[in-house]
Amino acid sequence: MREFSQDFQSELSALMKWRRDVRHFKTDTVPQDLIQECLDVFQDAPSVGLSEPWRIVQLKTDASRQKALENFQSANADALADYDGEKANLYASLKLSGMKDAPVQLAIFCEEDTPKGGGLGAQTMPEMRRYSVVAAIMTFWLKARAHGLGLGWVSILDPDQLRADLDVPNNWTLVAYLCMGYPQQETLTPELETVGWEARDPELTKVIER
Amino acid sequence: MREFSQDFQSELSALMKWRRDVRHFKTDTVPQDLIQECLDVFQDAPSVGLSEPWRIVQLKTDASRQKALENFQSANADALADYDGEKANLYASLKLSGMKDAPVQLAIFCEEDTPKGGGLGAQTMPEMRRYSVVAAIMTFWLKARAHGLGLGWVSILDPDQLRADLDVPNNWTLVAYLCMGYPQQETLTPELETVGWEARDPELTKVIER
Repeated sequence: MREFSQDFQSELSALMKWRRDVRHFKTDTVPQDLIQECLDVFQDAPSVGLSEPWRIVQLKTDASRQKALENFQSANADALADYDGEKANLYASLKLSGMKDAPVQLAIFCEEDTPKGGGLGAQTMPEMRRYSVVAAIMTFWLKARAHGLGLGWVSILDPDQLRADLDVPNNWTLVAYLCMGYPQQETLTPELETVGWEARDPELTKVIER
Repeated sequence: MREFSQDFQSELSALMKWRRDVRHFKTDTVPQDLIQECLDVFQDAPSVGLSEPWRIVQLKTDASRQKALENFQSANADALADYDGEKANLYASLKLSGMKDAPVQLAIFCEEDTPKGGGLGAQTMPEMRRYSVVAAIMTFWLKARAHGLGLGWVSILDPDQLRADLDVPNNWTLVAYLCMGYPQQETLTPELETVGWEARDPELTKVIER
């Protein structure tokens, strides 16, 4: 039985607290070796039936990043139109992506019908393949933060448009658009809490008994 | 900037590798305080718009566990019927859940239309709420393993049936059924790899450039 020390456990708790969704990045380059080292923990993530359905696209050209940025800007304008009054003003003031600055940008897809894993565990809940990709992303996020890197998950995007713009197969579903780089500043408080959009509610982690 | 030492990073890598999906549990009781301490890391997980859509149900009665077990057994019989020949024999030999033994059993739901978070980040990708729940589960899984606890994620279930059996609201979607307890044995190799069902492919973590 591999045991983990009390010291490690308290550092792990700190890592989980310091892992924040980052929207403000320094423009410093991140070495590709370090990006790959962090991505390699996808191999340690659970996946349904060992299907490993993750497909990792890194946007390296100005053209591909520009299309992704325009996709976000369009979806964000549509989202803003859904809010009124104070809430609209607050929404408009939020920085919801670091896509203009983040040196590393990744689009993570799920190959929906991968033959890998032989369909095990995905008959009644085919969404498990996408969940496997999320579990891998979360593992990656913690690993990246341990190296001092920040991640921001952008979901205000038209996923079909992004898939088309990046010219990836139709059976790949966008799970996440990730901005990555060294954070401009760090805090234990989510930015949405600081600006008064929403607060955390610790009551929600209490168990409901059945 | 909170930094993490090289020693911590290598222990974190070990934790990620030793985090396995566990199907064989000891029947030893897990103190409820420890379960709750692990669940509390849901508060540190990212959630879209700070919506915190997780709803955590712990199955404590024999009646609720029996219904969940029957749900699994029925879905698993249906799944087996999809395989032929060798693959069917191999499938039938797999231990796909620890539901008969695991001392702790949790059903984790997503409240699809929670007002919390004001819909931020979920207009074009409403599945982000479910992904937030998965990210929290993954954080919990690592925390639990640091305490020597194993988790097994069961997805061979009819999610609507489970929701009905547990008498939870209709707008809660099942994300995961988790078995938890002290593992009978530990290994770095996924059981599906040991028995020859599927193998890991490190090539899948290489980036595709665009």
